[in-house]
Amino acid sequence: MKLGDLAQALKLELHGDASYQVTKLAPVASAGDGDLSFVVSSRLTRELQQTQAGAVIVPASMASQANGNYLVSSDPYASYAQASWLLTPETFPLPGVHKLAQVHASARISPSASIGAYSVVNANVFVGDNAIIGEHCVLGTGVRIGAQSRLFARVCVYHECELGNECRVQSGAVIGAEGFGFAFANGWQAIHQTGRVMIGNKVHIGANTTIDRGAIEDTIIEDGVILDNQIQIAHNVRIGKNTAIAGCVGIAGSTHIGANCQIGGASNIVGHLRIADGVVLNATSFVSQSIEKPGRYSSGMPLQSSSEWKRTFVVLSKLNELLKRVRRLERREE
Amino acid sequence: MKLGDLAQALKLELHGDASYQVTKLAPVASAGDGDLSFVVSSRLTRELQQTQAGAVIVPASMASQANGNYLVSSDPYASYAQASWLLTPETFPLPGVHKLAQVHASARISPSASIGAYSVVNANVFVGDNAIIGEHCVLGTGVRIGAQSRLFARVCVYHECELGNECRVQSGAVIGAEGFGFAFANGWQAIHQTGRVMIGNKVHIGANTTIDRGAIEDTIIEDGVILDNQIQIAHNVRIGKNTAIAGCVGIAGSTHIGANCQIGGASNIVGHLRIADGVVLNATSFVSQSIEKPGRYSSGMPLQSSSEWKRTFVVLSKLNELLKRVRRLERREE
Amino acid sequence: MKLGDLAQALKLELHGDASYQVTKLAPVASAGDGDLSFVVSSRLTRELQQTQAGAVIVPASMASQANGNYLVSSDPYASYAQASWLLTPETFPLPGVHKLAQVHASARISPSASIGAYSVVNANVFVGDNAIIGEHCVLGTGVRIGAQSRLFARVCVYHECELGNECRVQSGAVIGAEGFGFAFANGWQAIHQTGRVMIGNKVHIGANTTIDRGAIEDTIIEDGVILDNQIQIAHNVRIGKNTAIAGCVGIAGSTHIGANCQIGGASNIVGHLRIADGVVLNATSFVSQSIEKPGRYSSGMPLQSSSEWKRTFVVLSKLNELLKRVRRLERREE
Repeated sequence: MKLGDLAQALKLELHGDASYQVTKLAPVASAGDGDLSFVVSSRLTRELQQTQAGAVIVPASMASQANGNYLVSSDPYASYAQASWLLTPETFPLPGVHKLAQVHASARISPSASIGAYSVVNANVFVGDNAIIGEHCVLGTGVRIGAQSRLFARVCVYHECELGNECRVQSGAVIGAEGFGFAFANGWQAIHQTGRVMIGNKVHIGANTTIDRGAIEDTIIEDGVILDNQIQIAHNVRIGKNTAIAGCVGIAGSTHIGANCQIGGASNIVGHLRIADGVVLNATSFVSQSIEKPGRYSSGMPLQSSSEWKRTFVVLSKLNELLKRVRRLERREE
Repeated sequence: MKLGDLAQALKLELHGDASYQVTKLAPVASAGDGDLSFVVSSRLTRELQQTQAGAVIVPASMASQANGNYLVSSDPYASYAQASWLLTPETFPLPGVHKLAQVHASARISPSASIGAYSVVNANVFVGDNAIIGEHCVLGTGVRIGAQSRLFARVCVYHECELGNECRVQSGAVIGAEGFGFAFANGWQAIHQTGRVMIGNKVHIGANTTIDRGAIEDTIIEDGVILDNQIQIAHNVRIGKNTAIAGCVGIAGSTHIGANCQIGGASNIVGHLRIADGVVLNATSFVSQSIEKPGRYSSGMPLQSSSEWKRTFVVLSKLNELLKRVRRLERREE
Repeated sequence: MKLGDLAQALKLELHGDASYQVTKLAPVASAGDGDLSFVVSSRLTRELQQTQAGAVIVPASMASQANGNYLVSSDPYASYAQASWLLTPETFPLPGVHKLAQVHASARISPSASIGAYSVVNANVFVGDNAIIGEHCVLGTGVRIGAQSRLFARVCVYHECELGNECRVQSGAVIGAEGFGFAFANGWQAIHQTGRVMIGNKVHIGANTTIDRGAIEDTIIEDGVILDNQIQIAHNVRIGKNTAIAGCVGIAGSTHIGANCQIGGASNIVGHLRIADGVVLNATSFVSQSIEKPGRYSSGMPLQSSSEWKRTFVVLSKLNELLKRVRRLERREE
């Protein structure tokens, strides 16, 4: 791709040779001829000055440090995101239903959509324009997949669940399985989970992530939510617009998470809580109470050598006793 | 469904109009005409008094607060569980082997069982009466699935593993994969995992949960155990009758968990431990020693604002030093 | 199998009857006639003396305690690992492409390899000698599976990813899904993940484990790495030779882990860190900083009865205040 065309597509100011050919992206430290790279902050000033990259996307504040070909962006990381699709375009399967897919007669599949080999599309399913259903997907009765959405191979969507437009779901994700609802009466008696999972537009769902259907009402994932791999979202959870959740997070039933939150990896949130908009949780946070104020929260333990940690472990096991000893000292002091 | 018929099916005392038609379940606060709702405790007295629900299941202690149609139950939550299946009956595929399933000639499939599209049923498999094997399941050689059990789409059961009657397994579950057993000798040498997974009756297994086969002896899940999503159960684990395990729990190899335990979400239990009957673990418990007494246990960290937590983190990192300082103060005191 | 033949295959010194027939492995405490067992340390001396096993593998140091038939090994656990495959040989599907598999014309499949029912092998895939691709696997365009590798049913490998020789991948694993890379600009904008996953030789990957493809460069798993179930490995991670990782571990993006590490179950490692060779992490370790020295590390919380833990929780929530109180006491002391 010619650098001039790229600058135009990204709407960036170009310095250097508009006819220069860039072929792929590369990190600024290891990039070479023909590579496009980017820097987002002055921490990479030296790498920028020494780079062998064919062209670099830089913030305005670093333009004076750039040599050769460069593109000036108000947000180099977002420009890099855009460039990633232009330099390595996504490949698409051909439209149409694969001859080895099993599609129910009542399903409505857009002629521009693609259904992969061995996928099963049950009754009354709707698949929108240009949607792509990969190989080995199973869409239950009444499922709705919006336009431009892409399900990679081996995604399960249980009956009646809906995904909006421009969603992207990685392999192994399970949407709409029965939530963990039981009454105990002479053994555990399952409660029929009759709600759905309702997913908005531009939602990303990672590999092997699970989102359970609601018990009575629906589990709701709003527009623009991004979910990493191996996340567990229980029944009746709601996740607000543009919230980002990193891998291995667990969210228990009926918890509502606000918009624009960022949930760090391996965090766990117990059930029936309310998390305000704009909450940021560091990795491995454990949330056992509702959070009413936006801000950044943490609860991760420090790592220690195991020999040190054994002592810490003992003190932690008797922490309340330690508090009492301090209190006793304070009383004597008085 | 007529309220009178429902009351009869649930064996509950009806107050109000037996000919009233209820069509679905709804939460007491948002229910409307034609909806059946329930309350379990006096915490919802106001909601009960103000509800627009067509009928409500109430405990005897709250019957005097109920208006209109209501059903009196000694366990409203259990009655709700029963009602959930009556008001929204489960839908079943037709009995028989789907024309796109691949069933080995030696497999014994009950004529009342159903095998879904693209499922693979290997040699010497047994599938009992009214059992349902969803689409894309893979049953290894010699697998046994008891009567009335239902596997949703895309469940894998490795060779020789057995499930009892009335089990329910959600999509993506993997039963009987090879456990993590290796000896180190010029690199890691795998140990052939020759045990099985033996699962009792009325066991529920959540989406993307994994249960490894035993190394020599079997991994055992007893009757009535309920497992949520994304649980990892390692080889040689045993889980006692009616134990409930919430999502994202990990149980390491050869640990035995008693009957009637409740393991909170994201808890982790190390290997070779014994957990007594009736142990309750709160969410994110870390169990590194056997638990001999029933009771409730916890180990989760408190969440703090990240600025506070940074200070806590430093104190935690030097907790043993803090203990020493208190000791020194105490000695001086004396 | 005759004990003499087994001794020869394992290269062990045999004491007892070379013509004795052993049929299976069993634990030393429960083994009976015809069973082979093993002991690794003097902790099992009593069990060894009382065992009913037909034969036992013992370390030289315990040979004097053994009765009847026994094999002397410098590493009984490794000998047991070898014996496990000899006494219960693995069963293999027949070579060839199953008639219900879908293989692209451009794929190069060794005649000695096996492709299972309903598997999809896309364009330009290479599958080496004696490799086994189970049922329901999906191999994306350009995937390479080395000789002797075995993928169990329902493994997904995205386009361009490569596995070396003698790898073993359990069901539900997803290799090469798109990593969690987004820029925020009027909503989250995905970054096209154009790197691959490159996996060495003799790598084991557990059930439902996910390994994301690199953003620009590759995610790399070196030779001899063993990964348990439900592990999440994010984009651009590197894992060094012979490192072992237990179940439910999460490793965030761009972290590099050295060789010969052992990562305990449910540990979590944040992104962009460097972990030295030979680091051992106990279960549930939380790693938020790089680790430069080999050794054993921990960070798990102690478990307490919930009533005790409530008090601990309060002290932990005010730990910094406790430190201040101790400081105040110390100042007064002076």
